[in-house]
Amino acid sequence: MNLRGTGEGTLIRKIREKFATLATFKEGSVQVGIGDDAAVFDFPPGQSVVFCSDLVAENTHFVRDLHPPYAIGYKAVAVNVSDVGAMGGVPMHFLISLAAPGDLDFAWVERFYDGVEAACLDFNVSLLGGDSSSSDLIFVDVSMVGRVPSGRAVRRAGARPGDGIYVTGVLGSSALGLELLKAGGDLSNPAVKRHLYPTPRHRVGAVLAGQAHAMIDVSDGLSTDLPHILEESKVSARIYKDRLPAAPGVQDHHVLHGGEEYELLITAPDLPKIVEGVPVTRIGEIIESGLENQLFLIDGATESVLSPSGWQHFRA
Amino acid sequence: MNLRGTGEGTLIRKIREKFATLATFKEGSVQVGIGDDAAVFDFPPGQSVVFCSDLVAENTHFVRDLHPPYAIGYKAVAVNVSDVGAMGGVPMHFLISLAAPGDLDFAWVERFYDGVEAACLDFNVSLLGGDSSSSDLIFVDVSMVGRVPSGRAVRRAGARPGDGIYVTGVLGSSALGLELLKAGGDLSNPAVKRHLYPTPRHRVGAVLAGQAHAMIDVSDGLSTDLPHILEESKVSARIYKDRLPAAPGVQDHHVLHGGEEYELLITAPDLPKIVEGVPVTRIGEIIESGLENQLFLIDGATESVLSPSGWQHFRA
Repeated sequence: MNLRGTGEGTLIRKIREKFATLATFKEGSVQVGIGDDAAVFDFPPGQSVVFCSDLVAENTHFVRDLHPPYAIGYKAVAVNVSDVGAMGGVPMHFLISLAAPGDLDFAWVERFYDGVEAACLDFNVSLLGGDSSSSDLIFVDVSMVGRVPSGRAVRRAGARPGDGIYVTGVLGSSALGLELLKAGGDLSNPAVKRHLYPTPRHRVGAVLAGQAHAMIDVSDGLSTDLPHILEESKVSARIYKDRLPAAPGVQDHHVLHGGEEYELLITAPDLPKIVEGVPVTRIGEIIESGLENQLFLIDGATESVLSPSGWQHFRA
Repeated sequence: MNLRGTGEGTLIRKIREKFATLATFKEGSVQVGIGDDAAVFDFPPGQSVVFCSDLVAENTHFVRDLHPPYAIGYKAVAVNVSDVGAMGGVPMHFLISLAAPGDLDFAWVERFYDGVEAACLDFNVSLLGGDSSSSDLIFVDVSMVGRVPSGRAVRRAGARPGDGIYVTGVLGSSALGLELLKAGGDLSNPAVKRHLYPTPRHRVGAVLAGQAHAMIDVSDGLSTDLPHILEESKVSARIYKDRLPAAPGVQDHHVLHGGEEYELLITAPDLPKIVEGVPVTRIGEIIESGLENQLFLIDGATESVLSPSGWQHFRA
């Protein structure tokens, strides 16, 4: 059975049935869930709404023959959870817009939503609605809201000279995993699994919201994402190559430029070495800027400017 | 200059500059706008958040050679405003996810965001962020939040036997406009303009939230959208052909089945004839259901079951 045979009404009904029992209706706040013009939920006073979206396009973020639909669904939710976490927020509810060809097998869609369901359970978030459309290519866009105590959101623009620069977990395995996947690697390889099923660090982000001066998640690569903090904060930075927490088996370029890690980059005066069971490694420090907001890489006795070489959309 | 030459960083910077002065930062509530991992805004107590998304896919919702990019941007915002209005809510903030080919001319993107800007001004909403990606086809997804007093959201599931069925404005011109556009019609033709630049009835929706039992916007056509109310409310309905407010020059099928009207369908005991300057026409009434939730069309002395014949995604 393909999507054309199933039809939009059946698709929405199935999604609604699947997620009705799952919707935890957190804090009794959900008034209207899937199946109306919009979802409606109450919001506790003293909290700000965190609001983000992340788009997944066929042939850009995934290849239909290579990436399992279960992983595409899981990851589409996980990357938004990561964005909410990178503000110091707690993720709550999301919508999915799915465009797909009419001749797509319905089993693909079912496995996609199985992955979404797994992410709901792993990250304690609930699907409240969205949109669906026919299209020649598959597109997925997830938009998510979360909460953060008013005035506590951690921006990219708060880093100060003297801050330590910290990173959660390890770097490089998602990029290695993508290479292995393209080369026909096994789906059970740890690096491939890491690429397909990222682990957002939102719990770490929420715990550190009171201490962090600036925070971002590593979605495009360390050499691209740390400069976002530097530009927004109008500072420079120095990081030490031998302190970067490399994942097993990865090479330098995976660690420095590999995207889709979804680890958090945090600047703060001082952070604990382990937060919520996740290692937090100090990799360098924020320094005053000269003419430009630059990132310096210290490698033994040598020092060089590290240019952004991570993922860039629209570039050849 | 195409998107590949411009690059993602420049695209985001230009969007940010364009909308920074426009963001009305309503009620002093926006803490973080465009350019961080997520937007953050405060929410007044006693209000619920309304949360919706609507996606626009190339070759499904628009054709690149036919639809001006300005109209695509304007409409992508307008249809979400309509969804928030169909819950009785007041639209506030939105995100845009835009996927586009690297060789797309940057002027297309600029005109697209000009249309978004016009919609911001027309509907008093602000762009707070989103995502961008390369893709072989253009794909736009807007997600929007609005507010509604707690407990006042108007669902599809509240219609009761005895309710009148009301529709705002007139029906049929958007479908006619699409036909004319495909046939090479002038962009200044009123029906074509209506198709390209819909006027959501969110102000009517918010005013009537206290009186309406059920509400939906006409996005897929009267014969498709009214049954959504009937199914959700477990009722049937009778509408009168001679009471349907047809736009000038349209035919029966435009009125009965034409989508993308973005008028509101409302069930309520009694409504005024004009709300916020918009005509509100009583077209029939909600009745008890027999075995199924059916829609009956009364045409003079004849009565027939009206089947959904509006837009269906994934159908051939």
